[in-house]
Amino acid sequence: MSNFKEIKSITIIGNGNVAWHYYNVMHQQALDVKCVSAREEVKEEDLSKDLIIIAIKDKVIEEVASKIANRTSIMVHTSGSTDMGILKDKAPNYGVFYPLQTLTKGLQIDFSGVPLCIEANNANTLFLLKSLAQKLSNKVFEISSKQRFYLHLAAVFACNFPNHLFGTAKEILTKEDIPFDIMFPLIDQTIEKIKHNNPFDIQTGPAIRQENAIMESHKSKLDKDQREVYEVLSNKIIKKQNQKRID
Amino acid sequence: MSNFKEIKSITIIGNGNVAWHYYNVMHQQALDVKCVSAREEVKEEDLSKDLIIIAIKDKVIEEVASKIANRTSIMVHTSGSTDMGILKDKAPNYGVFYPLQTLTKGLQIDFSGVPLCIEANNANTLFLLKSLAQKLSNKVFEISSKQRFYLHLAAVFACNFPNHLFGTAKEILTKEDIPFDIMFPLIDQTIEKIKHNNPFDIQTGPAIRQENAIMESHKSKLDKDQREVYEVLSNKIIKKQNQKRID
Repeated sequence: MSNFKEIKSITIIGNGNVAWHYYNVMHQQALDVKCVSAREEVKEEDLSKDLIIIAIKDKVIEEVASKIANRTSIMVHTSGSTDMGILKDKAPNYGVFYPLQTLTKGLQIDFSGVPLCIEANNANTLFLLKSLAQKLSNKVFEISSKQRFYLHLAAVFACNFPNHLFGTAKEILTKEDIPFDIMFPLIDQTIEKIKHNNPFDIQTGPAIRQENAIMESHKSKLDKDQREVYEVLSNKIIKKQNQKRID
Repeated sequence: MSNFKEIKSITIIGNGNVAWHYYNVMHQQALDVKCVSAREEVKEEDLSKDLIIIAIKDKVIEEVASKIANRTSIMVHTSGSTDMGILKDKAPNYGVFYPLQTLTKGLQIDFSGVPLCIEANNANTLFLLKSLAQKLSNKVFEISSKQRFYLHLAAVFACNFPNHLFGTAKEILTKEDIPFDIMFPLIDQTIEKIKHNNPFDIQTGPAIRQENAIMESHKSKLDKDQREVYEVLSNKIIKKQNQKRID
């Protein structure tokens, strides 16, 4: 059990996107926060803080945690796909402090809207981490390691993959000298609609209407990679539609 | 050449999403507008208007246009993927009046932000259609049939396909009792970023970092269809990254 009522001093280990944003928002909240690189020798005084946040690549979390083990500080990592249990023998009180947001170093965002997903190995640590998180964001959630895994997986479908498709759309338009921004109202409206409906219920386009002539003419103008994406996603849209008809 | 300086009277043929929205916004602008179904016998007085808008399914445009051919009215269709030339022998003055937006009957939107893509077979008709379009929207573009084809193709990648992926993300979360809206700040930020960057330059996620262990664990939790989408898009993200390294 931690011998304090509130997290007031924090050391962040790491110098990537998450470390940069956590440092900034904690500094703004007048917390006693310091950011140190995982590569340099971490000083003893930095390890006597209330909380140590390990904000580094997934595959080196365990190694760094082992190096600084056996302190009284709460220890957390910030990874979407790493189980909390990786910190089990490294500290008596540990957890996860995961931001569900695409963060880029140097690019300020309104942190109060960033969902923070919190997990801890006991109720007191959970309380302390949640209290800290609520100072930084209006969107704080208790999320288990299992749920966090699925959140991260869903984020690949809702963020990483659409991003690649937007890149392809821009590529197609640029080749024809059409500015990408002509498409922004359509993209905005698509997002607005999925917030209020099941996306599968509002699917539009040639695949769901099974307009084969249009799909063939589209495919004839795509390169091999674009065509493969077009075919797989069109087939899945058609299949989902047929499943709904049966249901 | 049309013998009038301004389009004041309009007949819309069709009763789908586009017809509904065009009727509404033109009515709001105090234009003399009437909406008739393609199935009913169109009356002679409806065919003596300044403009006839054929807002029906692609494959029946030619048939309906033939039935009402040889009038003095300007004739346009509203399709993304049909060449303007389909109206060539149906009217002396003809064109396209295509809204680049996902429109749903009954769901009001701010029409002033809807991009209207205009094309016509001569300068005077183009002028008349553009003047009308500018009364309805602040975003009016002259777009050729070829450009319109690529716009529609790009829209499949920027709207229809992401919509299916958002549906998949929701499906994954719902199965784990996680509300989809926890993901909205991430989706909003993804859209914000692609408006100011080339999406390929800001790609994030396990594929571009080539985190194979994470990708394998993700795939192990997906059904066959989800996994196929995951594999194809991850491979394309990796391939695009490797191309950029060579460039």
